[in-house]
Amino acid sequence: MISSEYTRDLCIRDAQSKILMLVIDGLGGLPDPATGRSELETAHLPNLDDLATRSDCGLISPLGAGYTPGSGPAHLALFGYDPWKTQIGRGALSALGLGLDFEKGDVAVRLNFCTVDENGNVVDRRAGRLSTEIARKLCRVLDTISIPGIEIFIEAEMEYRAAVVFRGEGLCDGVGDSDPQIIGVPPNELIANDSDSLRMVDVANQFLQSARELLAEQKPANMILMRGFGRYPELDSFQDVYGLKSLGIAGYPMYRGVAGAVGMDTIEVDWDMESELRLYEEQRSEYDFCYFHVKKTDSAGEDGDFNRKVELLEEIDSFIPRMVKQTPDVFIVTGDHSTPAIMRSHSWHPVPTMVFSELTLSGSTKEFSERACHNGSLGVIPSSSLLAVALAHAKRLSKFGA
Amino acid sequence: MISSEYTRDLCIRDAQSKILMLVIDGLGGLPDPATGRSELETAHLPNLDDLATRSDCGLISPLGAGYTPGSGPAHLALFGYDPWKTQIGRGALSALGLGLDFEKGDVAVRLNFCTVDENGNVVDRRAGRLSTEIARKLCRVLDTISIPGIEIFIEAEMEYRAAVVFRGEGLCDGVGDSDPQIIGVPPNELIANDSDSLRMVDVANQFLQSARELLAEQKPANMILMRGFGRYPELDSFQDVYGLKSLGIAGYPMYRGVAGAVGMDTIEVDWDMESELRLYEEQRSEYDFCYFHVKKTDSAGEDGDFNRKVELLEEIDSFIPRMVKQTPDVFIVTGDHSTPAIMRSHSWHPVPTMVFSELTLSGSTKEFSERACHNGSLGVIPSSSLLAVALAHAKRLSKFGA
Repeated sequence: MISSEYTRDLCIRDAQSKILMLVIDGLGGLPDPATGRSELETAHLPNLDDLATRSDCGLISPLGAGYTPGSGPAHLALFGYDPWKTQIGRGALSALGLGLDFEKGDVAVRLNFCTVDENGNVVDRRAGRLSTEIARKLCRVLDTISIPGIEIFIEAEMEYRAAVVFRGEGLCDGVGDSDPQIIGVPPNELIANDSDSLRMVDVANQFLQSARELLAEQKPANMILMRGFGRYPELDSFQDVYGLKSLGIAGYPMYRGVAGAVGMDTIEVDWDMESELRLYEEQRSEYDFCYFHVKKTDSAGEDGDFNRKVELLEEIDSFIPRMVKQTPDVFIVTGDHSTPAIMRSHSWHPVPTMVFSELTLSGSTKEFSERACHNGSLGVIPSSSLLAVALAHAKRLSKFGA
Repeated sequence: MISSEYTRDLCIRDAQSKILMLVIDGLGGLPDPATGRSELETAHLPNLDDLATRSDCGLISPLGAGYTPGSGPAHLALFGYDPWKTQIGRGALSALGLGLDFEKGDVAVRLNFCTVDENGNVVDRRAGRLSTEIARKLCRVLDTISIPGIEIFIEAEMEYRAAVVFRGEGLCDGVGDSDPQIIGVPPNELIANDSDSLRMVDVANQFLQSARELLAEQKPANMILMRGFGRYPELDSFQDVYGLKSLGIAGYPMYRGVAGAVGMDTIEVDWDMESELRLYEEQRSEYDFCYFHVKKTDSAGEDGDFNRKVELLEEIDSFIPRMVKQTPDVFIVTGDHSTPAIMRSHSWHPVPTMVFSELTLSGSTKEFSERACHNGSLGVIPSSSLLAVALAHAKRLSKFGA
């Protein structure tokens, strides 16, 4: 696999071309056993199907056959980084997405507001799916926690979720989660995976102890769980690696986080496609590369709601003509990973993908679906190769070797 | 990727089988927007199409999705070497192809005879596409250059091109080109990329200064440009790696160069296919492996001459029955890279390929084209894997593991 270090040094060249990458979260699916047709095959997608006949179609594999990615690795692969070697803790993604004060040397952690009983056992990991509004108020309560030598920044995310950033000397992120993932047991003890992370465990334990005291009388959120300890990521930026001035458009904070982690500009926006598309239409002339994220398809897949995912795909399809009308030189429609509704989870299945430019070997594919893309001219490629394909179509790669 | 070090140590076995690899330079193309058909799809190719129905067809990718190779990396991949890690400077390829006295420790450089104006600005990088004959005479003028402690060997290549070999203590090839690639500016100053190459810069600057004086009164070639500094390559030979006694047949010198770099025998021959094929017919019994290179298709693609490329493919097709009649045990038809006429350049698109032997899973492909090969039994594989496929069909690989 070609890593970004090669592209940077050897092949990148400037061009005026513009690239739009539409990432439909959890795009890939599997057949409904009742009909034998996947979500994409069930949906009526006249615009995506038409574009597919004029594009290089294929499938992208986030981690290689068999491995199911989380959102972080799946996106890093889409952005051309090695998803196995380049890891960002989920806490770091959240902190970046929320725009928390977060810099080199800091460690971020995701928080769940939860409910514990009188014995300290977790009885609801999500505190009754607390509203975001209440979570914000509770974050202001946690703001009063003071730990000598440590600066603390806290922000609510969606519903019961929040994130915290710790700043101070000697903090490392090799710490396991306190979230036990099941109910009826107490939170896990925090465990350092290496001696460098012992100080972080000590600081986090002080934070948890104070939180327990401050939240004791709250209902239903009388405790917090910690997971996804993550240092501030030190990734080469999109600008440095690819020479692309880039914008990340994502209504959902975590995806602005991963875009920010690779140095894209991000602008807060609602997470409906109309709002995102308006932002794209306003901003596109300023950028070489736009990453455009649509979240809800993944949520429908995770909920096992096949029909909802079909409807959402049809809604996305209705926006395609407006996106094509913006005439990016390269228009990519893809997903970060598959989330088949029948699995109610992310999966390892490679993701249908099309690349539309004036340099495509079109005509191999009659519709945009998992099976149709298998016969496409793009073949089945690693997700981390897709960005090189995009750059090639954008005439932003010079040849390697004489 | 299986590298040659593995195959050599683990699986190579002797056999009497013979392999012929026909490399049609720049083979792959893209559709003519007017017809929707690529060069291969437009050409009438009864013999190649018939062979495709009886072969394992597929596509080979020289550098992975998106990356466009130069001729050197593309050929190294065809020969089973890692094209990213194994680099040969273009000067070294030229020197090898021209049969210059060139050995370990030497540095070779490509020369362009060019025209500069009275201010030293380049006004024609090719000196009016000087004839090869005149370039030969000018090389004899440059032969008089003397630099203390350095031996110099110079030879003309095609038209305005030549190559020079420097031999002496402490020469390294980390030197940028003096060719500015554009006109109206002076040649670039030679710059050493590392301290080991400072001596080479000094020697090359002395050479350039003498050349300027010797050529001052010549018209139109009153100066030279240098590019592609390259050490003598130290690659494991085809014989050592694969146990193959090998012949490289190529009318164009640079391709004999890359064949020579991997230890193939090479014989000078004209670059029309009739001459090359006669040489093959004479020599084939002496060799296990023949690399057979056809150059003109790439030139037509680079010139943007779609129809010329179609005609050349039809001409190649007419020679196929004679090649099949020689009954090599394994006959491969492939290309080093794609050169779509509509792009007028090399491209990243994977290259149509067929492997014909008695062990092929034939019948998947009805014709020899980019789209037809996508559905072939070979799939889309790295170019550097093709040689292992060839060896397997030739029964020259034993099984790995008990």
